[in-house]
Amino acid sequence: MAHIKLPEGVPGIRGPMLISPETTKPLRELVEVLLRGPHTLTPAEREMIATYVSSENHCYYCQHSHGAAAAEELGGNYELIDQIKRDFSAAPISDKMKALLTIAGKVQKGGKHVTADDVHRARLQGATDKEIHDTVLIAAAFCMYNRYVDGLATWQPRDPEVYREIGQRIANHGYTAPGWERPVSSTAK
Amino acid sequence: MAHIKLPEGVPGIRGPMLISPETTKPLRELVEVLLRGPHTLTPAEREMIATYVSSENHCYYCQHSHGAAAAEELGGNYELIDQIKRDFSAAPISDKMKALLTIAGKVQKGGKHVTADDVHRARLQGATDKEIHDTVLIAAAFCMYNRYVDGLATWQPRDPEVYREIGQRIANHGYTAPGWERPVSSTAK
Repeated sequence: MAHIKLPEGVPGIRGPMLISPETTKPLRELVEVLLRGPHTLTPAEREMIATYVSSENHCYYCQHSHGAAAAEELGGNYELIDQIKRDFSAAPISDKMKALLTIAGKVQKGGKHVTADDVHRARLQGATDKEIHDTVLIAAAFCMYNRYVDGLATWQPRDPEVYREIGQRIANHGYTAPGWERPVSSTAK
Repeated sequence: MAHIKLPEGVPGIRGPMLISPETTKPLRELVEVLLRGPHTLTPAEREMIATYVSSENHCYYCQHSHGAAAAEELGGNYELIDQIKRDFSAAPISDKMKALLTIAGKVQKGGKHVTADDVHRARLQGATDKEIHDTVLIAAAFCMYNRYVDGLATWQPRDPEVYREIGQRIANHGYTAPGWERPVSSTAK
């Protein structure tokens, strides 16, 4: 049971977002610009960072929602997302992405864990200042979203179909399109 | 030295905020609504939550900026803010604030640390669902802001006058007023 009264049948962050429109507006704008705004990293790559950090924070809802968004962006490659969560250093992704995920993992532990060497290694793989800045901020932001979702003990269903539908909706419509708040069909059965 | 190129003489979060206006807009709107929007908790009380979490995350810039904002809201009571950071259970604040700070401290460690008992204790002291929701989100948000500031190794001066000026500006003008980006006078010497 959630720690506060939330709408029934609405999974994860959508519950508290429905009862707090004044904070929901900047929270949705932030995730839209970070993960889907114009960028040299693809939405799939930025969703991978969000997914990895959420997995390290053990947030079931966030890692499966954003993992599904990344997988759907890649034509349904859920296996790659599982590999990244298990051990990204062995996954078939670019060395630049591995260096950025290393930085994201340090941010998850705490900002001071990021070293000049971590950043130097990312630069050697071609990462720009903006890519490093945004990796730090995406990782930091998911340390917020994950805590918001788990700190209120929101409902986080285990049916994979729920997350597939969320992932498809994100990949097709992003985070600020109208209709995000309606319950996903699998949960409304 | 910061991990990426940032404007000189601009302390803490203001540096990265200046180079990333598209993320700065929702970041500033979020902190304004969380800490200064209409609420049953005063801005000073909400700044205390932000300060305590930033202190637990060892973020020098954030704990001193928001600590100064809280102190300036209270007529310059910096001693109270130091007490809250050291041991809020012994500080002269309400039992409701102590219960909310307990929840905030759990969120800082990770969302799953918050228990039904923590929330029950806050309710017994009169905390509403909105106050509990906002305490969780303020604590979560500062886990983001702190990581953003430290994850980029921003410049965090040690001169107390810098933070007093920042605190006064926040108390008088909030987080979204024009002019936030200009260097504080003490750093422009």
